[in-house]
Amino acid sequence: MEFASFLTSLCTSFVIFVVLMLLFTWLSRKPGNEVVYYPNRIFRGLDPWEGRRMTRNPVAWIGEALRASEADVIAVAGVDAAVYLVFLCSVLGILVLSGILLLPVLLPVAATDHNLKLSAQSNSNGTFTNLDKLAMGNIQEQSPRLWACILGTYWVSFVTFFVLWKAYKHVNNIRSAAKPNSLRTPEDFAVLVRDIPRAPKGQTVKDHVDLYFKSLHPDTFYRSMVITDNKKVNKIWEELEGYRKKLARAEVVYEESKTASKPDGTRPTNRTGFLGLIGSKVDSIDHCNEKIKELLPKLEAEQKVTLEEKQQHAALIFFNSRPAAVSAAQTLHAQMVDTWIVMEAPEPRQLIWTNLPKKFYERQIRQYVIYGIVFLTVFFYMIPIVFISSLTTLANLRRLLPFLKHIVDKPAIKTILEAYLPQIALIVFMALLPTLLMFLSKAEGIPSQSHVVRATSGKYFYFIIFNVFLGVTISGSLIDSLKTILNHPKQIVPLLGASLPGSATFFLTFVALKFFVGYGLELSRLVPLVIFHLKKKFLCKTEAEVKEAWAPGDFSYGTRVPNDMLIMTVVLCYSVIAPLIIPFGVVYFSLGWLIARNQALKVYIPSYESFGRMWPHMHVRVLAALVIYQITMLGYISLKKFLYAPFIVPLPILSVVFAYICNKRFYRAFANTSLEVACQNLKETSNLESVYTAFIPPSLMPEKLDDGNQFEGAQSQPSRPTAV
Amino acid sequence: MEFASFLTSLCTSFVIFVVLMLLFTWLSRKPGNEVVYYPNRIFRGLDPWEGRRMTRNPVAWIGEALRASEADVIAVAGVDAAVYLVFLCSVLGILVLSGILLLPVLLPVAATDHNLKLSAQSNSNGTFTNLDKLAMGNIQEQSPRLWACILGTYWVSFVTFFVLWKAYKHVNNIRSAAKPNSLRTPEDFAVLVRDIPRAPKGQTVKDHVDLYFKSLHPDTFYRSMVITDNKKVNKIWEELEGYRKKLARAEVVYEESKTASKPDGTRPTNRTGFLGLIGSKVDSIDHCNEKIKELLPKLEAEQKVTLEEKQQHAALIFFNSRPAAVSAAQTLHAQMVDTWIVMEAPEPRQLIWTNLPKKFYERQIRQYVIYGIVFLTVFFYMIPIVFISSLTTLANLRRLLPFLKHIVDKPAIKTILEAYLPQIALIVFMALLPTLLMFLSKAEGIPSQSHVVRATSGKYFYFIIFNVFLGVTISGSLIDSLKTILNHPKQIVPLLGASLPGSATFFLTFVALKFFVGYGLELSRLVPLVIFHLKKKFLCKTEAEVKEAWAPGDFSYGTRVPNDMLIMTVVLCYSVIAPLIIPFGVVYFSLGWLIARNQALKVYIPSYESFGRMWPHMHVRVLAALVIYQITMLGYISLKKFLYAPFIVPLPILSVVFAYICNKRFYRAFANTSLEVACQNLKETSNLESVYTAFIPPSLMPEKLDDGNQFEGAQSQPSRPTAV
Repeated sequence: MEFASFLTSLCTSFVIFVVLMLLFTWLSRKPGNEVVYYPNRIFRGLDPWEGRRMTRNPVAWIGEALRASEADVIAVAGVDAAVYLVFLCSVLGILVLSGILLLPVLLPVAATDHNLKLSAQSNSNGTFTNLDKLAMGNIQEQSPRLWACILGTYWVSFVTFFVLWKAYKHVNNIRSAAKPNSLRTPEDFAVLVRDIPRAPKGQTVKDHVDLYFKSLHPDTFYRSMVITDNKKVNKIWEELEGYRKKLARAEVVYEESKTASKPDGTRPTNRTGFLGLIGSKVDSIDHCNEKIKELLPKLEAEQKVTLEEKQQHAALIFFNSRPAAVSAAQTLHAQMVDTWIVMEAPEPRQLIWTNLPKKFYERQIRQYVIYGIVFLTVFFYMIPIVFISSLTTLANLRRLLPFLKHIVDKPAIKTILEAYLPQIALIVFMALLPTLLMFLSKAEGIPSQSHVVRATSGKYFYFIIFNVFLGVTISGSLIDSLKTILNHPKQIVPLLGASLPGSATFFLTFVALKFFVGYGLELSRLVPLVIFHLKKKFLCKTEAEVKEAWAPGDFSYGTRVPNDMLIMTVVLCYSVIAPLIIPFGVVYFSLGWLIARNQALKVYIPSYESFGRMWPHMHVRVLAALVIYQITMLGYISLKKFLYAPFIVPLPILSVVFAYICNKRFYRAFANTSLEVACQNLKETSNLESVYTAFIPPSLMPEKLDDGNQFEGAQSQPSRPTAV
Repeated sequence: MEFASFLTSLCTSFVIFVVLMLLFTWLSRKPGNEVVYYPNRIFRGLDPWEGRRMTRNPVAWIGEALRASEADVIAVAGVDAAVYLVFLCSVLGILVLSGILLLPVLLPVAATDHNLKLSAQSNSNGTFTNLDKLAMGNIQEQSPRLWACILGTYWVSFVTFFVLWKAYKHVNNIRSAAKPNSLRTPEDFAVLVRDIPRAPKGQTVKDHVDLYFKSLHPDTFYRSMVITDNKKVNKIWEELEGYRKKLARAEVVYEESKTASKPDGTRPTNRTGFLGLIGSKVDSIDHCNEKIKELLPKLEAEQKVTLEEKQQHAALIFFNSRPAAVSAAQTLHAQMVDTWIVMEAPEPRQLIWTNLPKKFYERQIRQYVIYGIVFLTVFFYMIPIVFISSLTTLANLRRLLPFLKHIVDKPAIKTILEAYLPQIALIVFMALLPTLLMFLSKAEGIPSQSHVVRATSGKYFYFIIFNVFLGVTISGSLIDSLKTILNHPKQIVPLLGASLPGSATFFLTFVALKFFVGYGLELSRLVPLVIFHLKKKFLCKTEAEVKEAWAPGDFSYGTRVPNDMLIMTVVLCYSVIAPLIIPFGVVYFSLGWLIARNQALKVYIPSYESFGRMWPHMHVRVLAALVIYQITMLGYISLKKFLYAPFIVPLPILSVVFAYICNKRFYRAFANTSLEVACQNLKETSNLESVYTAFIPPSLMPEKLDDGNQFEGAQSQPSRPTAV
């Protein structure tokens, strides 16, 4: 790519960004849009604008994002969002500290050498741009100037270690401070137990569980809740909820039809058959009321059956104090290690009920099968896509769907189709990939939503590092390169070193596009805005439906974190080879940090709280990126035939040692709750009954509020009704 | 080696064995020897013979060993000995089950082929023995008879999996049954805490520890004992004990000198200088009494100083119930994972006091440094030995120690010296190796003796597998082979396959020698017998000294287990290539099992009890041997140019999967005590004060029994004086 075209692309991106910013300023002030731009504030019952509509300053949100303290972020958006911000901030710190030394040192060192000129002279058709002159490519082979590269690599590595260590400590403190202060933590009193062995004859699982835990924790056991097979009861409950929604909707429609001219209105009707298109016509309100009346006793009966007869081999155990639960969750219970496996209970809202009864060996096997599938997906996803692309040619389309012939044969449409048809399979695949990975992670048998997101994030990280970063860099078939590498493992170092410099300009543009366009769209929320207004106009009738339409969801860490990781890997890898990329990285992560803060404070509503358990994964992956970088540099400097290239070798080893130390030093505090933390704020009394109720799934909630004693089937009576 | 010489060596070994057996029968009945042959029974206060002297049956001990049940063994020799017997028994089971199929199938398959004859014809100087005809070497290349080899390998592998799975389950049951029934387990109430952070100013470590644990375990904390630096107090105490022994000895000498002719006797004297050789002559009894009087107040003062001022950053925490201690030991205490590290307390008698205060990072670093040293020792131990051997030549000896010249120059002595001098360094090294490895393991910072023995056993296992087994097999410099292997990792498979068959006869002889001579010596206890009688005659005066002279020690698992492992590896690796080795292996392990039972019941006195924590290590190493075997077979069958050799490939993978499953399934029950086990026999009350006292090291024990309240410096007062 030439310098001019690079500048053009940069300017275009910037213009788009400015336009999106202005759009954001304008749109966010329009009444009716506040639910798209300030849903979090509305959700918390605050005034979305707080007199902000007065100022017409398009960068006011930046000030607000900067003014908020970390404690504010934790209070509003939870620890997970705060930890994500720490991650962005850490990477920013690494890049700024690296840039401070690398830019003033490496740019002059590179610019004053003449390698490109020399090779251009000897190679008549060699061309080079001013951009290339500022990169390491301009240093001659064996030049002592390459010492600057080695020192640069060391500097970046040590800066990374320093920042990561500080950040890990900081996150650990956030976690330990937030946990005892958090108000809604019923899970602190509970332990999840899986792989309960078969109950002795004549005993239900519930009796078995109660007996076992009462004998092992005579003083602290409160009660238990056995996991049940809720498939059928869920179905009935969903049907019931569906009719309730329909009823509410029909009532609104009926109310609206009561105009002045027609004070009685028209009662809405619908058809009972498939999708409301066929079948007999009925009065919607009456029909729904009837159905609800019919389903209520059915639900109650099924609830009873479920609680009594569909008990699974997993349970939640409630203790009467936090330290007792924390201690029990970490203690080996059974001599047969694969039975009575205990762990800290996840939050009620992120518990994946259907995964809980999965057995020990089943979980192991599922996990490895899914690792296998992911491995195949990462390396060979192109094969089915190429196959599908070969099927979806124009000729096939004409043969299979003859009625399209007339449209397809028009020259303009034909050209477009010919250009895009082969890509469709790939585009669809890439769009569906996060969902697919989420599905696979869930199928592993993981008990909590946050854990599934972590697992997805890991899988997606491998996918984009291998396919986007290495794919673009090594360019050409990854499978061929892989074959070379597997046969000659040492080949990967020169391969990386040789391929990287060529793609520098491409990645510069890529990073710029990512932040200008990507962040512009993120901030202006154009897509959710359009979807919300369309839904509101054509679909939503009731309050609840409107609320559902603007519900912003949470940060989707599963894809967001790996994408940031990709940018970080790219910037790190080029930091010494083409130091000009560092400012781009700095802009990406500082803008990202600002916008993520804005979104955390005003937009997204967290759907779970894992108290920063994502951090160790982020930490390890930043180190993985660092190792890729160090190996690349080793290859690159070796290719320059520099005698002292092996001086890089200690760096990857150091990185591994650092990762190992950090793991030993911090990890267990993320995997388990420490007794220190559990014993804080002990005086605060908690209503144990409400702790217990928080875990009852909605489909098993008693329909009549006075009927609280129904839950005796799978759930024991409290052994001590007094609260702590 | 020819067949005749093999038979000769076999017969010689057998004759030695019979002679040793007869010696044992004769010697064990002689009065005065019972302390060598039945020390365990004497130690437990039983009659050593129980009327057995009547029977002159040389194999009576076999009957006794067979009649004893496992429960007897556990009661007498502890769980560790029982687990060692399970190990021997399991290997025996593997070999017997393998032999049942392999011998009747493989021997005829091999014997009826003609490969050796053919190669002998083509190769004029080729020779072969009848023994070789019964081995796989006699099967022609590419012959379909090689299917029998593949199936044999599968059979052996599955038999191993089956037996090991059963054995792991069995050992797990032994462990869980023995733990709650064991009477003397003060460690069940204690937790070891290391890496205590610096105490706040003005607080001693003891205050700090008490405050911390009282706040985290308000209901169950009993008291604490801070580890102190006992170097100085130990020295004084040892000096004191030395004088006490000398005093007792001098008194006995004095009593003995009172003969009828000289009723007053002669008071013994000694010199006070170096080794009692120089210095002024003093009356021994008076001198010792004086010294003891002098040292007693010194000891008391030092005890006080130690307890108050030499507190280290580690402590033992005592709880008032077993489940509380077990639960606390498995719970993360501090948010900073590298502080307040808790673990189950080891038995008082196996606690390595000096290792306890070692810091987290120090332990990590020590561990890796020592792994490095062991690696160098395993691979390069020959270098210093060759160097030392080159120094200890006859010429050097003559030059350095001229006074030896006259002896050295005698032709007979010269010949012997020339033959053995070069070996001396090697022999000395091999004799010192277990001690060296034990020292290295201890230096890792491991807190308990049994763990040190496990670590030593692992190191010794690697040493003998690499140097004896692979050393003999690949024969020639191991380092050269290593170089080949490191450069072409796949080379190891054909290398093993090609080298193994040549050493078959050597290993047959080796195994036979091991069991006939080794076990003969073990059973007849000739060496301890001679040493005991020499000591008794010339050194021992007092009762205590005699007792010390016959103290049999315990099974030295650190060297015993790896040696058995070596035999097992050898037999497994040859099981298909030369099936004749299987009967030898069967004899080795059945004799070994019998003799180990005899020694466990009558001889050795266990010095610690780890409740079978050795088992997971044995298990993994049997599997390691199996993998070596499977890889060898892959190489061997490939070399026979058999097309279906890759059918072996799934086996090593299966072995790794099996090891992984077993680890997941059982290991944690060995690393931690389960709550189930801790909650058994809860009614049995325990005197908490005696639990506490059991951990006080002898040098810190108050000299006057009434002075029990001295220990306030490093040890807290009980927070609840009532027992559970």
